[in-house]
Amino acid sequence: MRIGIDAMGGDRPLAERVLGALAARELLSEGDRVVLVGDEDQIRRHLAEAESWERFIEVHHADQTVGMHEVPVEALRAKPRSSLAIVTRMQRDGELDACISAGNTGAFVAAAQMALRRLRGAHRPGIAIVTPTYHGPVAICDVGANVNCRPQHLYQYALMASIYVNAICGIERPRVGLLSIGEEEGKGNELVKGALDLLKTSPAIRFIGNVEGRDVFRGTCDVMVCDGFVGNVVLKLMEGMAEGVIQGMLGELKESMPEHVEAIRYAAEAIMAKYDFNEYGGAPLLGVRGICIICHGASDRRGVKNAVRVAIEFAKCQINERITSLLSQEQRVSDA
Amino acid sequence: MRIGIDAMGGDRPLAERVLGALAARELLSEGDRVVLVGDEDQIRRHLAEAESWERFIEVHHADQTVGMHEVPVEALRAKPRSSLAIVTRMQRDGELDACISAGNTGAFVAAAQMALRRLRGAHRPGIAIVTPTYHGPVAICDVGANVNCRPQHLYQYALMASIYVNAICGIERPRVGLLSIGEEEGKGNELVKGALDLLKTSPAIRFIGNVEGRDVFRGTCDVMVCDGFVGNVVLKLMEGMAEGVIQGMLGELKESMPEHVEAIRYAAEAIMAKYDFNEYGGAPLLGVRGICIICHGASDRRGVKNAVRVAIEFAKCQINERITSLLSQEQRVSDA
Repeated sequence: MRIGIDAMGGDRPLAERVLGALAARELLSEGDRVVLVGDEDQIRRHLAEAESWERFIEVHHADQTVGMHEVPVEALRAKPRSSLAIVTRMQRDGELDACISAGNTGAFVAAAQMALRRLRGAHRPGIAIVTPTYHGPVAICDVGANVNCRPQHLYQYALMASIYVNAICGIERPRVGLLSIGEEEGKGNELVKGALDLLKTSPAIRFIGNVEGRDVFRGTCDVMVCDGFVGNVVLKLMEGMAEGVIQGMLGELKESMPEHVEAIRYAAEAIMAKYDFNEYGGAPLLGVRGICIICHGASDRRGVKNAVRVAIEFAKCQINERITSLLSQEQRVSDA
Repeated sequence: MRIGIDAMGGDRPLAERVLGALAARELLSEGDRVVLVGDEDQIRRHLAEAESWERFIEVHHADQTVGMHEVPVEALRAKPRSSLAIVTRMQRDGELDACISAGNTGAFVAAAQMALRRLRGAHRPGIAIVTPTYHGPVAICDVGANVNCRPQHLYQYALMASIYVNAICGIERPRVGLLSIGEEEGKGNELVKGALDLLKTSPAIRFIGNVEGRDVFRGTCDVMVCDGFVGNVVLKLMEGMAEGVIQGMLGELKESMPEHVEAIRYAAEAIMAKYDFNEYGGAPLLGVRGICIICHGASDRRGVKNAVRVAIEFAKCQINERITSLLSQEQRVSDA
């Protein structure tokens, strides 16, 4: 397997992506390669200190970089030789089997769609993130690829994310909830009401109905579908809130019971590790003809290494083959 | 001041609303009255044990009740004599100065709009909830009144919620953030992009730009505006997440450091009290010609009592007068 990493994209220095690639060595099988795409001189400078990196790492030069805050489509048009554009095109041309980026998410999604196209039958790609909770993992899809959704898109997110969590988390028949503002069928906006009609009649999905924000933490469902705007707000709120609650608890104890502050710090670190994007590595873009793993912008070497793990599992579990097969069955049913 | 309470609506037994009304006595000035609207026999049975309740409580009979899960507009049409419908009509007719309900939120919002109409110049009412955070209170508007927003609605939420937090929390020139999925102007869905254009050119609003979910907890802004669907998801996610993080921390420590579990429980209770809807009492419906305070469905006596406090402060601070005055200035500007 050949896995490309966009060495340029991300909030952290390039060294983190290079060190992540080096750390991924233990995940690779004989013959597997990690290809670092970006400024060759810089990459080689960071590789120089490592031992025998040539055995599993290759460097592919790219002389342009898409910035984290550039407007995606404009940036891709202006920079056809950017590391992001090259890494997706290399996958299209069969030089890579998967690609990973911690760069501009919108630009990565756009580049992936342009270069790789969508899986047969898939309407819109969606990013599926697996959130650890006390009651087990919950996949949320979409968390930012598609902010102008139609009901059919949410329906397909349910199908694709069910296959993903079944394969990756081993959940037998994942329970799917539709994120809304009340459990009753009449609740929600037009998008949610339209998606509900599709979801509740599908034999391919174990649909449990509308769920609410609080259900993420209550073990109600294994997959939660929503449009990319709502999903992205949810994702970033969770990130901020874990911090906020813990900060608040430390504040409460610091004065009154300082002897317990260390224990809280310990528990807080354990919790934050679970919510740490570096731990889960990256989120797949479901629905594209290829393997694209999106890392959090602030991913460090651990995050990049774990994204390599996600890419390998994605390929091993044949997620795309299973999605294509299910979508074609769906098509046959709706044609019949 | 005469404050009506819908005695029938809510997840908890009627007794909680009656006990809340009794507990509100200490908040009332000479001549103030709380009017409990609902099943007279039941209400009087719970009042019977209290001393001299007649001095500040009145009972107004209503023989119909809107259920928590009924479809709002249908329920109001079928039950014109429901406690919810009556309490809002009494305010329209000048028999009450404010009304409070922990019942069906959608039905309360619809009843308020029908009976009281909107403030002059206000397009759509929005529910503004004040969330306590480590860095101070943050008002989020709308959290569920209006799930199909237009940019102009978000713009007015910013105006109205700024006035509200200025008056209630004493924040001088509240910083307003537009909830989106990235700080850059190009990020977000069509609604957010449209609202941004209105917000950034308004001299009446101290607009700081797009904010993200995590900013709720980072002291970035004092007011956050969003459509009612997104706001409601955020609200319920926060509710569930405080629980989830604390449950997770207790889980981490139970085995390894049981001696600290009690301290964590103590800190957790202190935090949960801050996120407790019973503590903040209720959220005003901004933009209606009257005072409508919406309580969480699970509000207990404390929540109901604190909603009375919110209603009194709302009147004292002349929020509606200030909103009307600002909206008419805006109108004059746009006419000029």
